[in-house]
Amino acid sequence: MSQRCVKVGLLGLGTVGGGVARMLLEEKQRLSSRLGAELVLERAVDLDPALARDQGIPPERFSTDAGAVLDDPEIDIVVELIGGLEPARSFMLKAINSGKQVATANKMLLAHHGVEIFAAARQHRVGVAFEAAVGGGIPLIRSLREGLAADCIVSCLGILNGTCNYILSRMTSEGAPFQEVLAEAQAKGYAEADPTMDVEGLDTAHKLAIVAALITGAQPDIADIYTEGISAIEPVDIQLAGEFGYRVKLLAILRNLGGKVEARVHPALVPADHVLASIEGPFNALHIHGDWVGDVLLYGQGAGRRPTTSAVMGDVMDLARGIVAGCPDRVPPLGDAGAEGGRLEIAPMDDTACQYYFRCLALDQPGVLATVSRVLADHRISIKSVIQKGRSSSGPVNIVMVTHEAREKAVRAALKEIDQLPVIAEPTRLIRRA
Amino acid sequence: MSQRCVKVGLLGLGTVGGGVARMLLEEKQRLSSRLGAELVLERAVDLDPALARDQGIPPERFSTDAGAVLDDPEIDIVVELIGGLEPARSFMLKAINSGKQVATANKMLLAHHGVEIFAAARQHRVGVAFEAAVGGGIPLIRSLREGLAADCIVSCLGILNGTCNYILSRMTSEGAPFQEVLAEAQAKGYAEADPTMDVEGLDTAHKLAIVAALITGAQPDIADIYTEGISAIEPVDIQLAGEFGYRVKLLAILRNLGGKVEARVHPALVPADHVLASIEGPFNALHIHGDWVGDVLLYGQGAGRRPTTSAVMGDVMDLARGIVAGCPDRVPPLGDAGAEGGRLEIAPMDDTACQYYFRCLALDQPGVLATVSRVLADHRISIKSVIQKGRSSSGPVNIVMVTHEAREKAVRAALKEIDQLPVIAEPTRLIRRA
Repeated sequence: MSQRCVKVGLLGLGTVGGGVARMLLEEKQRLSSRLGAELVLERAVDLDPALARDQGIPPERFSTDAGAVLDDPEIDIVVELIGGLEPARSFMLKAINSGKQVATANKMLLAHHGVEIFAAARQHRVGVAFEAAVGGGIPLIRSLREGLAADCIVSCLGILNGTCNYILSRMTSEGAPFQEVLAEAQAKGYAEADPTMDVEGLDTAHKLAIVAALITGAQPDIADIYTEGISAIEPVDIQLAGEFGYRVKLLAILRNLGGKVEARVHPALVPADHVLASIEGPFNALHIHGDWVGDVLLYGQGAGRRPTTSAVMGDVMDLARGIVAGCPDRVPPLGDAGAEGGRLEIAPMDDTACQYYFRCLALDQPGVLATVSRVLADHRISIKSVIQKGRSSSGPVNIVMVTHEAREKAVRAALKEIDQLPVIAEPTRLIRRA
Repeated sequence: MSQRCVKVGLLGLGTVGGGVARMLLEEKQRLSSRLGAELVLERAVDLDPALARDQGIPPERFSTDAGAVLDDPEIDIVVELIGGLEPARSFMLKAINSGKQVATANKMLLAHHGVEIFAAARQHRVGVAFEAAVGGGIPLIRSLREGLAADCIVSCLGILNGTCNYILSRMTSEGAPFQEVLAEAQAKGYAEADPTMDVEGLDTAHKLAIVAALITGAQPDIADIYTEGISAIEPVDIQLAGEFGYRVKLLAILRNLGGKVEARVHPALVPADHVLASIEGPFNALHIHGDWVGDVLLYGQGAGRRPTTSAVMGDVMDLARGIVAGCPDRVPPLGDAGAEGGRLEIAPMDDTACQYYFRCLALDQPGVLATVSRVLADHRISIKSVIQKGRSSSGPVNIVMVTHEAREKAVRAALKEIDQLPVIAEPTRLIRRA
């Protein structure tokens, strides 16, 4: 085989970009040997030259100008690790339009502009790889797109945000309140200074949008994905859910109904003996149910420099193999699971049916449970089990219940009525069962 | 795109072959739509025509002669699901030599003749895919070969035989003896009439040989893999291991020492809080540690018609995509992890170092523990913890201990001495820690 050279241009030298630069420099021999071609970091770009020096990138291979990668016809693969919407979107489209292969970890960009980016990739017959966008080092995109290429994926349940899982794990093990654990996570580097994207579930929703597109071949509108974060979860809810035999996890939930899908992100009760209940700390996991394969779980580190670099570089190796073999667009970005390119219809949240956990904070008076139960019955919501917490002080008491399967719309209407009852002291808390 | 047609020839209509035939017939539209080309079951071969009728294969597409697949130049992909060494080996080599792509679930064949088969595949530039050979429906071959293509895999721990895992799970939950649970597993179809390959660890060793080849690029001699099954495990050992905080699992263990590897199959103590400890029943799992990705776990159904069919068909889709794109040999069979084609050196079992669980059945006399401890100390084996079981009858008592890390060779020598002590009633039982 002629010793071909595959040239990589790297945009962004932050946490993951720095890791990719380092791996390309340090492991060049290993990677080239496996590839049967030389794999070269041709040029790295960042606004901050100090980041290039940190990774030992030779000055002649560094630029502060993205054009040094995008306009160089020698560069085969562009690795986009800038993040965010712009200029990442423009850069990626320019790379695709120039016939370059693209690897990215940018879940926000793909969730918002996947239709445009994947259409451009198909038009220009280039590969767009994004293993690192969901689940960090876990090879789950490849598993869904290629390993399970013959299956119809019926459902997915994912723990896809390490920050939230870490916070919920600590709240569970220590009974500490959200704000305290968040501050601790920030101090340890597990949570960002502005944690909104993570703790309010938006990051998870971006990842779910990508998984939904992979499974159906059509792109959801991110605004259609019901998204609720963990900031309103209280230690008492975690403890009481435990008494019912559940753990609380922030889940990405997808159910493929054929034609349309249920796709939602919210805290959820997971039975304590379910494999997802044991995913602790900053780990991520995706539980997949396929019509032929049955249950599959993929688990690993969902973030961090080294795991995410592994995923990006797995993609770079795949794209490089495609270049060497002359078929970089062998697999379409979404694996052609359906009528690719279209919009995915998400079932309205009101139509969701599941079991619910409620915690009503009620005045400690006789007949409160009867009153609350009556409202639920009026909305055809039946109670599976209930715990009335005896008073520990003279204040209001918790009435905690888990329902049989009920509809979101009915639940919302019932809770509105319940919360207007004079005996109810605070808005009722709700957690859905996975 | 011109609507190309990719033709599949299927050898073997047993459990998995029947599933593949059915999927190709029933899901033809789904598969062809994803592929962007028509995927056709051109011909199926089995000695038993009744099996073809069972799957609804049209008579003109069935033959009892493998030549009807191997000699047909129209057939692009041969799916070998006959199992065993011959005639599977000859058929597969003939297919490869004719330039056909091959998918197989035949772990025994690849473990014994991988060097020959993979060399032929490279020579004729065809793809050989074998996702279904290890871990049933779990996309672990693809994850190791492609997803983690940039990583050096440092170690793997696998539960790769569902029969053994089912038996050990039942022995753990019910305290029932091996033979009783085996008989139950046979009655339920979880164990074969002749369970030797499974329960003596040989099936797991075949799978470990394939994983070792994938990780290193070199093929081990199956005879070099130390292999010990579960038939000597007694419920009392499972119970006592539990008292030390461990679960007993049959593990495939691989440690990449660079140049050579540790590769062994034996019952092992897994800490109760390790993710592998929670893999129950007929499920399989592979726990991977890579130098960049860190820990990854892949989990799913390791056997059965539908999961294994999913894996075979994922391979067929991958090969078909390669054919359509003109690059069926894009990824070498072993991913080119090293000096492919060579023999892999396995470190001698004597050199293995790990912690050990011993159960000595000793006469109930004063000073026995001191005597046993002295022998261990003479061999530089130090004890981490010990339980002496008080007598429940007048018979011998169990002295149970877990050691600090010790060498296999020293342990073997020490146990030989211990078992010759007059106070020892039965050969000492040994289980290694994972």
